[in-house]
Amino acid sequence: MTDNKTMSKITLDQLNAVPAAEFTAALGDIFEHSPWVAEAASRARPFATVAALHEAMLAAIASVPEPQQLAFLCAHPELAGLQAREGQMTAASTAEQSSLGLQALPRTDTETFARLNAAYRARFGFPFIICVRHHTRDAIIARFEQRLLNESAAELATATAEIAAISRLRLVGKVTGPGLPKISGHLSTHILDTAHGRPARGVRFELHQAGPRGDGLILSAVTNHDGRTESPLIFDQPLRIGAYTLRFHIGDYFRQLGVATADPAFYDIITVSFSIAEPTGHYHVPLLVSPWGYTTYRGS
Amino acid sequence: MTDNKTMSKITLDQLNAVPAAEFTAALGDIFEHSPWVAEAASRARPFATVAALHEAMLAAIASVPEPQQLAFLCAHPELAGLQAREGQMTAASTAEQSSLGLQALPRTDTETFARLNAAYRARFGFPFIICVRHHTRDAIIARFEQRLLNESAAELATATAEIAAISRLRLVGKVTGPGLPKISGHLSTHILDTAHGRPARGVRFELHQAGPRGDGLILSAVTNHDGRTESPLIFDQPLRIGAYTLRFHIGDYFRQLGVATADPAFYDIITVSFSIAEPTGHYHVPLLVSPWGYTTYRGS
Amino acid sequence: MTDNKTMSKITLDQLNAVPAAEFTAALGDIFEHSPWVAEAASRARPFATVAALHEAMLAAIASVPEPQQLAFLCAHPELAGLQAREGQMTAASTAEQSSLGLQALPRTDTETFARLNAAYRARFGFPFIICVRHHTRDAIIARFEQRLLNESAAELATATAEIAAISRLRLVGKVTGPGLPKISGHLSTHILDTAHGRPARGVRFELHQAGPRGDGLILSAVTNHDGRTESPLIFDQPLRIGAYTLRFHIGDYFRQLGVATADPAFYDIITVSFSIAEPTGHYHVPLLVSPWGYTTYRGS
Amino acid sequence: MTDNKTMSKITLDQLNAVPAAEFTAALGDIFEHSPWVAEAASRARPFATVAALHEAMLAAIASVPEPQQLAFLCAHPELAGLQAREGQMTAASTAEQSSLGLQALPRTDTETFARLNAAYRARFGFPFIICVRHHTRDAIIARFEQRLLNESAAELATATAEIAAISRLRLVGKVTGPGLPKISGHLSTHILDTAHGRPARGVRFELHQAGPRGDGLILSAVTNHDGRTESPLIFDQPLRIGAYTLRFHIGDYFRQLGVATADPAFYDIITVSFSIAEPTGHYHVPLLVSPWGYTTYRGS
Repeated sequence: MTDNKTMSKITLDQLNAVPAAEFTAALGDIFEHSPWVAEAASRARPFATVAALHEAMLAAIASVPEPQQLAFLCAHPELAGLQAREGQMTAASTAEQSSLGLQALPRTDTETFARLNAAYRARFGFPFIICVRHHTRDAIIARFEQRLLNESAAELATATAEIAAISRLRLVGKVTGPGLPKISGHLSTHILDTAHGRPARGVRFELHQAGPRGDGLILSAVTNHDGRTESPLIFDQPLRIGAYTLRFHIGDYFRQLGVATADPAFYDIITVSFSIAEPTGHYHVPLLVSPWGYTTYRGS
Repeated sequence: MTDNKTMSKITLDQLNAVPAAEFTAALGDIFEHSPWVAEAASRARPFATVAALHEAMLAAIASVPEPQQLAFLCAHPELAGLQAREGQMTAASTAEQSSLGLQALPRTDTETFARLNAAYRARFGFPFIICVRHHTRDAIIARFEQRLLNESAAELATATAEIAAISRLRLVGKVTGPGLPKISGHLSTHILDTAHGRPARGVRFELHQAGPRGDGLILSAVTNHDGRTESPLIFDQPLRIGAYTLRFHIGDYFRQLGVATADPAFYDIITVSFSIAEPTGHYHVPLLVSPWGYTTYRGS
Repeated sequence: MTDNKTMSKITLDQLNAVPAAEFTAALGDIFEHSPWVAEAASRARPFATVAALHEAMLAAIASVPEPQQLAFLCAHPELAGLQAREGQMTAASTAEQSSLGLQALPRTDTETFARLNAAYRARFGFPFIICVRHHTRDAIIARFEQRLLNESAAELATATAEIAAISRLRLVGKVTGPGLPKISGHLSTHILDTAHGRPARGVRFELHQAGPRGDGLILSAVTNHDGRTESPLIFDQPLRIGAYTLRFHIGDYFRQLGVATADPAFYDIITVSFSIAEPTGHYHVPLLVSPWGYTTYRGS
Repeated sequence: MTDNKTMSKITLDQLNAVPAAEFTAALGDIFEHSPWVAEAASRARPFATVAALHEAMLAAIASVPEPQQLAFLCAHPELAGLQAREGQMTAASTAEQSSLGLQALPRTDTETFARLNAAYRARFGFPFIICVRHHTRDAIIARFEQRLLNESAAELATATAEIAAISRLRLVGKVTGPGLPKISGHLSTHILDTAHGRPARGVRFELHQAGPRGDGLILSAVTNHDGRTESPLIFDQPLRIGAYTLRFHIGDYFRQLGVATADPAFYDIITVSFSIAEPTGHYHVPLLVSPWGYTTYRGS
């Protein structure tokens, strides 16, 4: 569940020590086609924390004149756009967009993105930028439509915040050291059998990404003796903003216990649908269940 | 559970038809020592509804000059005061105050009331007036202490609202006809067994008035085949603002069903404590219960 | 929601009074191609209740020798079989089977039924009989597969019980009078907002038939001021055994109240999936909901 | 919350190495007035675990003839009996009994114990033995009354099991080393605010021992940012079988958040009463709460 390869990372100490050119070479592609950001940040060395390094990079962007900021935004590729289809994006963008399959969308989605990209650029004068690794495909389209209604100033701020999110993930993927920004979230579940007063062991369940473009099954698991899974359902990576569904096979569980309910059982598969809104959030979605009633909530 | 004796009531039609003196004689004691209120209202006849008659009486009070309003307030007896102890109150006030045992309080409560009455009169210049039939003894003392902190204008409005409540109850006790003001509330419960998916039948429970001066047990009952009682716990009368406790004998219930829990059982008596704030409110306090978990809420 | 046309029904009094031939003519088609059942029952007149009349008809069947009972069973049409497709069933069977669209199934289902019908007749020597109006299409197939595993004696008893159910519905559709057998069930819902302590008003929700062959949407409604619907979701008719889903638009509800939750909201549509097992059962499926947690159960 | 002083303990290694007399001297008072048990066990050395040492001691008792076993039982003091009042018990028994205040009971309890002790000895011929540190005072009396109804064989087994429990606690109090028997339980709570989707921080609550002889308040605490306490409510010691009450000050909590409910609030103090049945059990008693509803259950 992790895509952070710690072994090949460069340390903050190394970055603080190397010549500026080497620093820029190492971090030049954190911001899309804009090595000047790393170059500017190199002059603020040394950094005590990785977070401070990231802040310095963002400050470098904020300090250039508006036309250059606009050019900076325009250096970003469109989502699911021509550059993606023709393989002209940076390696980072390519990896990010393909994590959602944006380079090979079904025809209707390609058309949706084309329409939205055009409308967005016409309205704001720069491409739509969003932290792809923070969203499901459905959530991206939902946000795209919402953001098209923004005023220019609000939208500029939103685009800038998304760039901060993108670059934070890229930086943490490359650099290690003290004060790493938090980038991971947590999703877990827990099933308690309130008819027997103990964790529900051996319950099969699935986690799905929901929504019309949902990628479907994320994982299938069975609860352990504590009614949980050995590790969280998602951890050590950002959570994607979007809709999810947990499907708990409760009918099978009570049948195996020999609990006599009706035929067919009142509950077979209990479905809990919820949305994640914070990529670094802690989401615990428990189920308290008896053969004829259940409770779920956002836990902690 | 009802104290409205319909048989001996006078009808609105009769009140609309009789000479003014007879009208005043009939309703003269609705407002404490103030037959002039009825007399003034008699001139606004005929009334289409009992509620309209009540409104006319309140309007008569509102229309007199302030000194007369103050005199009107001062015509009310103190709570648990000298008049009560010496039997000098009107019949209505005597009945109301004795419904809470205010004429025969324990010594410490008598002292509390004496202290509060004195402080109140010193601050506002008129006696503390509250609709006794709308409160438990503890709730009266709590309100007394709260209201001592009010500004004069707010307190005058509060006292007037309490007089409206007192006189509404007295009027509905005397007069019958169309458009009777609502004076009754509703308190009920319901027990569902979520381990078995059916109403919990045969559960003994008690309703108590809670709080340091609580009168204790209001009723004890056993749920029927539908997990309810044949009639609500309180109905056809105003609910007293105050604290209540329901005690459900759930341990006995599951033991009788042969449901094996622990020894001693995890739940023996489940206690649900709640407060009533609206004398004419609809309060439904259900319990969803399994041997190892329960849920309660304000239902409808 | 009712398909019982009371106006044109014959009364039990009339049936008790008419000549035997007329009695037999009136009730001859209650049992498939077997007017002899009505004829036998006519000799047990008069009946005090419609239920007693039905019992007498079932007793007539039970009293004939086994070969005649087998012939009686064989007089029933196959489900979605040749007779259905060629329009050779009785009017009652035609109406019942077409209520589930069994006369015009998709090809894969036709093949499924053909395979099951053949296997069943080979195993038991008579056609598969089930009270169609008591099941969804998916439930029929599930039962069909279960019942194929029965021993002959158990299956004979099951088929007889299904015939009792079919004929009970037909009889109540034709005859009126005292002691009508209960044939209707009840499905209702109720939404309580436990963050605000009141019924959730204005919540849109849908009831769906679930399962691979589910007919989809049964109804769409909006809760009233009491968090309920004016009439139950299903009533005055038998409930179909099978799987159902309620979908509550809770995200919209809390958004309209201005309750600040996350963006996207933690809950958008809350789905409650349950099965009905008793056609004449009372099913109440409430939802207690706050912005971050909910409880559902079989109520009463 | 711990009464195990590790510093002064003897190690299992030491016990395995010392001369038999020293071993017996060290462990002679694990069993009441019966150093022969330790002596017998010394011959089974070395022990790999403390649990094995304990098993060997219990086996030594089981292997002596019945008259000697009876004498062994009779060497135990009565509960709250003459020996207790006159200071003639062993140090261990004195400490155990005084942990429940059994040496200085109110008169009515002294009489109760005297009556029960007499009835018990008359029926079984040996004193009532119970692991005092595993029970509240009320639970001891409840068990006493239950056990008086036992058959002799069952009661002998029960007394033996209680002696095993007593000696296990004494042994763990004296000896350290690998394979220590588990003697501690766990009681914790957790409050989640389902109206806001987060832990309820800053909720004051109390844990009480309940029952007519309850010692009252065990602890008072305030929930932290995670809706929990820094350490469990009880841990690192055996839980006492008996009745407990948690009282959560929920009214104050929602008032501080400015959540408008009624006046008085529907919930002021939410009381959850439960019993502990296993001294080494894991008891988690959470509260999911919104202003108008709550859920509690045995968690994990």
